Amino acid sequence: MLKNEKLFESVRPVGEDTVAVIMWTEPVVLPPRCRVNEAIERIRQVGLPDANMNHCYVVGEDYTLLGQVALRDLLLTRGGILVESVMSHPFVTLQPEDDQELAAQLMEEYDLLELPVVNGENRLVGVVTADDAMAVLQEEATEDMERMAAMMPSEKPYLESKAARLFLDRIPWLLLLMLSATLTGGIISHFEDALAAQVALTAFIPMLMDTGGNCGSQSSVTVIRGLSLGQVRFADWLRVLWKELRVSGLCALALAAVNFLRLLVMSSVGTAVAATVSLTLAVTVILADLVGGLLPILAKRLGFDPAVMASPLITTVVDALSLLVYFQMASWLLGI
Amino acid sequence: MLKNEKLFESVRPVGEDTVAVIMWTEPVVLPPRCRVNEAIERIRQVGLPDANMNHCYVVGEDYTLLGQVALRDLLLTRGGILVESVMSHPFVTLQPEDDQELAAQLMEEYDLLELPVVNGENRLVGVVTADDAMAVLQEEATEDMERMAAMMPSEKPYLESKAARLFLDRIPWLLLLMLSATLTGGIISHFEDALAAQVALTAFIPMLMDTGGNCGSQSSVTVIRGLSLGQVRFADWLRVLWKELRVSGLCALALAAVNFLRLLVMSSVGTAVAATVSLTLAVTVILADLVGGLLPILAKRLGFDPAVMASPLITTVVDALSLLVYFQMASWLLGI
Repeated sequence: MLKNEKLFESVRPVGEDTVAVIMWTEPVVLPPRCRVNEAIERIRQVGLPDANMNHCYVVGEDYTLLGQVALRDLLLTRGGILVESVMSHPFVTLQPEDDQELAAQLMEEYDLLELPVVNGENRLVGVVTADDAMAVLQEEATEDMERMAAMMPSEKPYLESKAARLFLDRIPWLLLLMLSATLTGGIISHFEDALAAQVALTAFIPMLMDTGGNCGSQSSVTVIRGLSLGQVRFADWLRVLWKELRVSGLCALALAAVNFLRLLVMSSVGTAVAATVSLTLAVTVILADLVGGLLPILAKRLGFDPAVMASPLITTVVDALSLLVYFQMASWLLGI
Repeated sequence: MLKNEKLFESVRPVGEDTVAVIMWTEPVVLPPRCRVNEAIERIRQVGLPDANMNHCYVVGEDYTLLGQVALRDLLLTRGGILVESVMSHPFVTLQPEDDQELAAQLMEEYDLLELPVVNGENRLVGVVTADDAMAVLQEEATEDMERMAAMMPSEKPYLESKAARLFLDRIPWLLLLMLSATLTGGIISHFEDALAAQVALTAFIPMLMDTGGNCGSQSSVTVIRGLSLGQVRFADWLRVLWKELRVSGLCALALAAVNFLRLLVMSSVGTAVAATVSLTLAVTVILADLVGGLLPILAKRLGFDPAVMASPLITTVVDALSLLVYFQMASWLLGI
């Protein structure tokens, strides 16, 4: 039995990722005054739409959802009992326009393998089963990972995708990020004289940029995943800010200290250069963590996919910031 | 009913992420010559261990698994029928020491919400239900993302984790990667004279390193996800190599061409510098894609978690490689 085309028309808008697309539209429905043996007879006649469906639904006038009955309860109850006395009230329902991810989240949260879908007037329009929700979970996680790595979400498994398709999924972001790195190059060119005066500074640029990028991707991935799992919301932005401030403060302290000692002990650069590099590192780490933690929340608020805001884009922003801090620090501490 | 401690002792080794940890150990078992009404009576007496379990299992001598019966089939069959004539043969089974991820993968692949677990002698030892497998899917995806972003997997949701805990999850990799960036710094220092001769070259280092890093994380994330979903195996390494060679070739061509034209049109560097930068870019992109695609497969083969081999570590490797290529290219094309 396929998804009901007619229903799609009656519920607008039906986005690609809505519950309406994965729900079964013809569950077995029973009136409340029906007896258990009549219910079993009815299941025998109409059949359950899917092998993974293990409930019947009790509806009133116009399909208003009243309750649900597990097949196991029909099996274990005497035939003369009314279904309304064995049914349970569904305490979680979905709407057809809900995101499929919500279906999966609710099933996981409440340990359920089946959820009824009702419209705005509480009328039963379908049922989502856990096997479809599991597939959604996997797809969404894959899409998030792909977006975090600056790719368009793929439609097929990797080995089945054509090279040209993979190329098209990857190249737009690569081009965009390459061109945005012009900014970083521009900053370096702008401070060419400072670098010529202290050539040693150049050698630390990759370390500063990489560490900033790593911190940014750590906080962004944490927050993006939290958003996907429904554990972090926009209203939490102040808590995220405060948490990232403390975590990044600790990271900044540890990294700057280790770096400063390493430079003093293992390299020939003077204390002033070591201090310049280490202070820049500390500021970069804090900025990167904050940008990484807050940009995804802002993106979600503005209606974008937060995963798009992950590592590569944040890296570009953080790269530029860290260079500006570096040259400012050098001008203060080294007088160049 | 909780998981059976006794069983844990009898099955060794029981890793943290094995099926043994999430399986229910007391499913309802029936002899093959039992009749449907006797089966229903038995379920009534012993009870199903979990509300999400919708099958009974037919076993022979010593619990040898013979088949499974869905509750719906018991419900819809006449009481006098033998269960062996309504049972189906389970065509997928798990072993207690299998990875939990495999349970989720098999359920998804075969659209099942319940899988029997048998030991090496095909004796039924437990049953895994889809709600537990869904939780595993989510956790594994989160862990993969965290590892890809160079973090230790977290134990609690982000907002509930203490700042000190998050710091400890993040700092080891940050320190390691910072120290490994010394390599990159060393390469730049080594070529200090070349850079002094052509200061313009410095400005392109971030762009080259970032683009290489982006390509590496694209291919690594794709392959890591493929490994997690069971779509890519070690035996596929040659196919991955061939695919990445073509994809990266296309990316290299597009990026180098755009970059070359941009430098000629928009900047004052000469054709020789533009060619040096663009050729380095092309080589870097190809190297990064190959390293990103193959390192995770190798890691898995060696028994490491492939996700650990993702972006940050690959970035460090690719950074060093791209700098070496850059200076070699400059020596050839610019004679420095």
